[in-house]
Amino acid sequence: MKKPLRFGLVGTGFMGKAHAIAMRSVGTIFPEVAAPELDYLVDSNAARAQELADAWGFRRAGDDWQALCNDPDIDVISICTPNHLHKEMALAAAAAGKHTWCEKPLGLGGPEAEDIWRAAEKAGVRTSMGFNYMCNPLIGLAKELLASGEIGDVFNFRGSYLEDYLSDPEAPFSWRCLRSQGGSGALNDLGTHLINMAEYLLGPMQSVYGALATVHTHRIDPASGQPREVENEDIAQVLLRFERGPVGTMEISRVGTGKKCGLEFEIHGSKGSLMFDQERMNEIRLFRTGEPAVESGYRTILAGPQHPDYARFCPAPGHGLGINDLKIIEARNFLHSIATDTPVYCDFANGWRVQAIVDAVERSHRDQQWVDVTQGKH
Amino acid sequence: MKKPLRFGLVGTGFMGKAHAIAMRSVGTIFPEVAAPELDYLVDSNAARAQELADAWGFRRAGDDWQALCNDPDIDVISICTPNHLHKEMALAAAAAGKHTWCEKPLGLGGPEAEDIWRAAEKAGVRTSMGFNYMCNPLIGLAKELLASGEIGDVFNFRGSYLEDYLSDPEAPFSWRCLRSQGGSGALNDLGTHLINMAEYLLGPMQSVYGALATVHTHRIDPASGQPREVENEDIAQVLLRFERGPVGTMEISRVGTGKKCGLEFEIHGSKGSLMFDQERMNEIRLFRTGEPAVESGYRTILAGPQHPDYARFCPAPGHGLGINDLKIIEARNFLHSIATDTPVYCDFANGWRVQAIVDAVERSHRDQQWVDVTQGKH
Amino acid sequence: MKKPLRFGLVGTGFMGKAHAIAMRSVGTIFPEVAAPELDYLVDSNAARAQELADAWGFRRAGDDWQALCNDPDIDVISICTPNHLHKEMALAAAAAGKHTWCEKPLGLGGPEAEDIWRAAEKAGVRTSMGFNYMCNPLIGLAKELLASGEIGDVFNFRGSYLEDYLSDPEAPFSWRCLRSQGGSGALNDLGTHLINMAEYLLGPMQSVYGALATVHTHRIDPASGQPREVENEDIAQVLLRFERGPVGTMEISRVGTGKKCGLEFEIHGSKGSLMFDQERMNEIRLFRTGEPAVESGYRTILAGPQHPDYARFCPAPGHGLGINDLKIIEARNFLHSIATDTPVYCDFANGWRVQAIVDAVERSHRDQQWVDVTQGKH
Amino acid sequence: MKKPLRFGLVGTGFMGKAHAIAMRSVGTIFPEVAAPELDYLVDSNAARAQELADAWGFRRAGDDWQALCNDPDIDVISICTPNHLHKEMALAAAAAGKHTWCEKPLGLGGPEAEDIWRAAEKAGVRTSMGFNYMCNPLIGLAKELLASGEIGDVFNFRGSYLEDYLSDPEAPFSWRCLRSQGGSGALNDLGTHLINMAEYLLGPMQSVYGALATVHTHRIDPASGQPREVENEDIAQVLLRFERGPVGTMEISRVGTGKKCGLEFEIHGSKGSLMFDQERMNEIRLFRTGEPAVESGYRTILAGPQHPDYARFCPAPGHGLGINDLKIIEARNFLHSIATDTPVYCDFANGWRVQAIVDAVERSHRDQQWVDVTQGKH
Repeated sequence: MKKPLRFGLVGTGFMGKAHAIAMRSVGTIFPEVAAPELDYLVDSNAARAQELADAWGFRRAGDDWQALCNDPDIDVISICTPNHLHKEMALAAAAAGKHTWCEKPLGLGGPEAEDIWRAAEKAGVRTSMGFNYMCNPLIGLAKELLASGEIGDVFNFRGSYLEDYLSDPEAPFSWRCLRSQGGSGALNDLGTHLINMAEYLLGPMQSVYGALATVHTHRIDPASGQPREVENEDIAQVLLRFERGPVGTMEISRVGTGKKCGLEFEIHGSKGSLMFDQERMNEIRLFRTGEPAVESGYRTILAGPQHPDYARFCPAPGHGLGINDLKIIEARNFLHSIATDTPVYCDFANGWRVQAIVDAVERSHRDQQWVDVTQGKH
Repeated sequence: MKKPLRFGLVGTGFMGKAHAIAMRSVGTIFPEVAAPELDYLVDSNAARAQELADAWGFRRAGDDWQALCNDPDIDVISICTPNHLHKEMALAAAAAGKHTWCEKPLGLGGPEAEDIWRAAEKAGVRTSMGFNYMCNPLIGLAKELLASGEIGDVFNFRGSYLEDYLSDPEAPFSWRCLRSQGGSGALNDLGTHLINMAEYLLGPMQSVYGALATVHTHRIDPASGQPREVENEDIAQVLLRFERGPVGTMEISRVGTGKKCGLEFEIHGSKGSLMFDQERMNEIRLFRTGEPAVESGYRTILAGPQHPDYARFCPAPGHGLGINDLKIIEARNFLHSIATDTPVYCDFANGWRVQAIVDAVERSHRDQQWVDVTQGKH
Repeated sequence: MKKPLRFGLVGTGFMGKAHAIAMRSVGTIFPEVAAPELDYLVDSNAARAQELADAWGFRRAGDDWQALCNDPDIDVISICTPNHLHKEMALAAAAAGKHTWCEKPLGLGGPEAEDIWRAAEKAGVRTSMGFNYMCNPLIGLAKELLASGEIGDVFNFRGSYLEDYLSDPEAPFSWRCLRSQGGSGALNDLGTHLINMAEYLLGPMQSVYGALATVHTHRIDPASGQPREVENEDIAQVLLRFERGPVGTMEISRVGTGKKCGLEFEIHGSKGSLMFDQERMNEIRLFRTGEPAVESGYRTILAGPQHPDYARFCPAPGHGLGINDLKIIEARNFLHSIATDTPVYCDFANGWRVQAIVDAVERSHRDQQWVDVTQGKH
Repeated sequence: MKKPLRFGLVGTGFMGKAHAIAMRSVGTIFPEVAAPELDYLVDSNAARAQELADAWGFRRAGDDWQALCNDPDIDVISICTPNHLHKEMALAAAAAGKHTWCEKPLGLGGPEAEDIWRAAEKAGVRTSMGFNYMCNPLIGLAKELLASGEIGDVFNFRGSYLEDYLSDPEAPFSWRCLRSQGGSGALNDLGTHLINMAEYLLGPMQSVYGALATVHTHRIDPASGQPREVENEDIAQVLLRFERGPVGTMEISRVGTGKKCGLEFEIHGSKGSLMFDQERMNEIRLFRTGEPAVESGYRTILAGPQHPDYARFCPAPGHGLGINDLKIIEARNFLHSIATDTPVYCDFANGWRVQAIVDAVERSHRDQQWVDVTQGKH
């Protein structure tokens, strides 16, 4: 039997915990995957690292991410730190020959993401991007329905990702409002998921036209108690065309009051359509032409063992998966990629691609013209 | 007691019947309005006109719309004929001094609509446009909530109007595919409702950016059996800004497979948000900030007697109004406008406004640049 | 051409207005039906009768319902007065040979309803009961799907009718709380609709077992300012069996806090199932076995012109009918019944049947045993 | 630091895997709980036991459940075997002084369950029943809202648990159809969850009245190819009263065509109401009286970190938990119970209680009379 992979993790926040859960459970859910050993947990706070290592079942803890990257016993590293630290860490991990799972965004902007991707390519390591929503069994179903022609020729994609974490004008200034850390704002934080989802389902985009808006231009800086200018945007609105023909729209907002995880899309085609809303992640709606007229309507499909991967979690339909389960599927995909030495969707190439489109939307907004994003041209 | 208004109607299709129903019932629902006498029904087919006049309770019938316009006994005329006939008829009605209720679009394009509006202005008659969706009691509620500041500062409008009547590639070529009759296609047919709704709720738009697409470029002409080029667009995607600040998007499609009357919008603000879908016209969803966190969520408000006009139809909440009921409210608004000699929203000024924005979207698409639609500039 | 029927109406409240609207519009919606003349309107308040006669388009008005019943010019009478007056008026109408449309309940209890039915039978007049919900085009669809075997063998009916008009403990004592006027309470007021719906869809019930409960046993009498005992029940819970085999449940409540018109049912069968909720009266949900597993789910069918009667109101699907439209269909059914001298479902026979089942539920509750309601035995 | 508990598991099916996942992840999600060591996995098939022990991270494997029970190194045992084996194993576990987590039903019938409970009581071990649905953060919210009086005086409970795993008449005869293994059928399999939920939320029931029905009386036995009589019931319909006053209904079906995990309830009270559907387990609907009338409606609350336990899985609202997450909460509850030596809800006392009510419903059905289930009397 092969020696298990040894796993190191840097970052212990929202996503750090999600990666720890996923790596701990992945072998139980997917017995065919050799579960990694939870080996090394790093947090900038050493005491917190130790405490969580104990709780999460990691063998070792520390506060030095470079030590983690350079540890010869480590095979795989997850990067779950704030966005602006991704680059340095990912480059170090690549240099040390570690397979790397990085939370989105891959880097702050396309060029940074490209550097990271090139380093990993050069190092010959396997990589994975943290786009969990696309791991949903029902997104797998959507992908299959689209690929098999059940929806017919696709006319358009209508996507949105709305959350409301900055709707409140009184919410204080934070790193999210800094271009150097939060990038282009909602577009970077939420839009990356939507861009990835759109291309996953309908193939590469060809061109984009963007309009960005900052609703709350100033927020109180908790440090100074004074208003401080918000450096990036609350709302991004995007028109787009796919290489294969369909047109599309994307609307992204961090001021979408009332929306908590509003990643939604509709896809219309000549033989049917699909509707999805992440807030009801265990449902997808399918319309098919060709039904008898009196019975025609959107059907609400509940996730079940007939859909990709669901049965591994639960043999009974309609019982419901959760967001952490999607992360377990993501972990499986990554471990499978390492085991078979084949790329996973999404890897750093996709991570770079998404950031390149983010840049293109920003440029379009600035120049008020359509920007070509044909693959290979960026 | 004042002599009742005498009503004439030209056109007996979908909208003609809706106007007939509305004018016949309006006095029962709204006793404070003097119900008009159903006097003169015109259809290009005289036999059909007579048959329907008998059924619908009109005193007279005929096939000559000019006779109707010039009849001195007629006070009010409804124009429910195909779009390309609106101009000639509306000008004649104005010239004869008749109050006029015209189905949308007012004319084929802004200049034509302006001519019609100017003629009515000059004649001093009252006018009304057939934008029924905005007459919904729950749209009245939305308007009140927005006006009273319950949603706070509005950030954005996210609207769509999707139907699927031309999704099928096999659907034959028809007048809808002709620019001379169907105008700009989906934008003209469905988008006019959405533009009107957006401005009704959030005030005038300032600028628009549009992208139009024809999915099915050719359709079989039933006359020749040969493919014929579709002259207008199936999909319109619009970015926009309102004068008061909010940004917006509109998506309009006649190939929105599965959607039957998908006029939807979301409005997000600093204190709440609203969601509406015409396919569930007796519901509106309201989110309010400031609720205790554990109980916070969108509430689904069912139309009831506490909302504008509902009680006239039914004293019991949740029992449901229908599309024809909205037309009755529209009729009431128009008759009230005549009785008080005050303008109604929407009248021909609004009808022109909407067509001017349609033109601006088309121009934007052609020129690939934002087009100013500040009021007073068109 | 035949002389139109002359229509008289007694009662001008909720249902009186609904009958007036329906009789005024029925000829426009259904041109094949000879619209009646709105002739004589009666209200106990003569001034109100006159005012509303003018508004609603009735030729005459008065405060003497017996004069209406005995007027030789009248062919058809609607009875829309409080429940306890139905009997006297219906007997008088029958005695005078008038076709009669009576709001539910037909009488206060089965024996009273039977007397009314027998009188109408003897007089040879056509009758109709005001069970509007079953006139919904989507209920028509449900009926067809059940009849054609699309749902397979039916296992069970799960029905409820919940409203909340007496949820509030502070709501004052009213006629609804009196057994002599409100009968058995929620069971009589709301349950009659549900009983009728159940038998309309699945055929006659065979036996019932009931449990009744009064949640608010006393309410303040506005006359005295003192608490007064409520004489009937807020909640009825019923187990039942149909003659054809299925079992069922019914739950009826006037204290169903939050529910406004919550007439809902689910029907499960060997090949599918149906779900309906009157609060979303333009939708019905259909599940069919035999679909490919990955695409299986409840489909939400929007009412459209492919369903019974819908096209008469509107040729476009998904645009929505309202509660008053159902009343227009009910009027059409009744006028058709008169014109063809054939019984309509529901007529007074059905009205009696429903009251007999109400009585059986009450008796079951009292005796704590199942009560047989096999047809022909009551 | 205390030595971790050593955990043994018997049964590797649906629930066996769920327990393994839960015990493996519980320490990561809830760091305050000392995670147990996954020590000993038992399956009747030794090879399968070994294979899954490797995959799931258990140290040892075997096919002898008695060896597990008698192993002195084991502190805690989960019983996830077929229902009819629960008794023997639970008695052995108690005799050996192991804390025991048993999947429902505790035993086949109340007397068997009582024996198990008494044995555990006598042994002084902590116990837990596998009623996962009540561990949902939103059920926790419901419990809090009810306890704090936010719903006011509760009038009634309207519950159902419908699945369709035996809807198909062609589904073969299986252990589920045997009284000796499947108990009373749907009532035992699904109804136990619903009974437990009802009492968890509204306190003990006082009396029940049941009606049971077998829709498919015979099924093909795969062994013989011949029809074989189904020994238990497909549908259970229950009327009930709670000790605190409310009335209720429960409907349970394994032939609820189209329903996959349809555990639903509505609770109406003097100040509000609640609606829940397990198929949308991340939502609960709350209606509150006292809102301004125009804004009144059911609000849909999405699970979020403001609700019990949710934040441990995810700090962001609306992202969604899954069924396995509920099992992790259940594990935490059990481990907390052991650590603090206090009873957990639900333990074997509750497991017995639920089976006693199941028996009472069966008896009621047989005797056609209400059966008292006042606590302390069974």
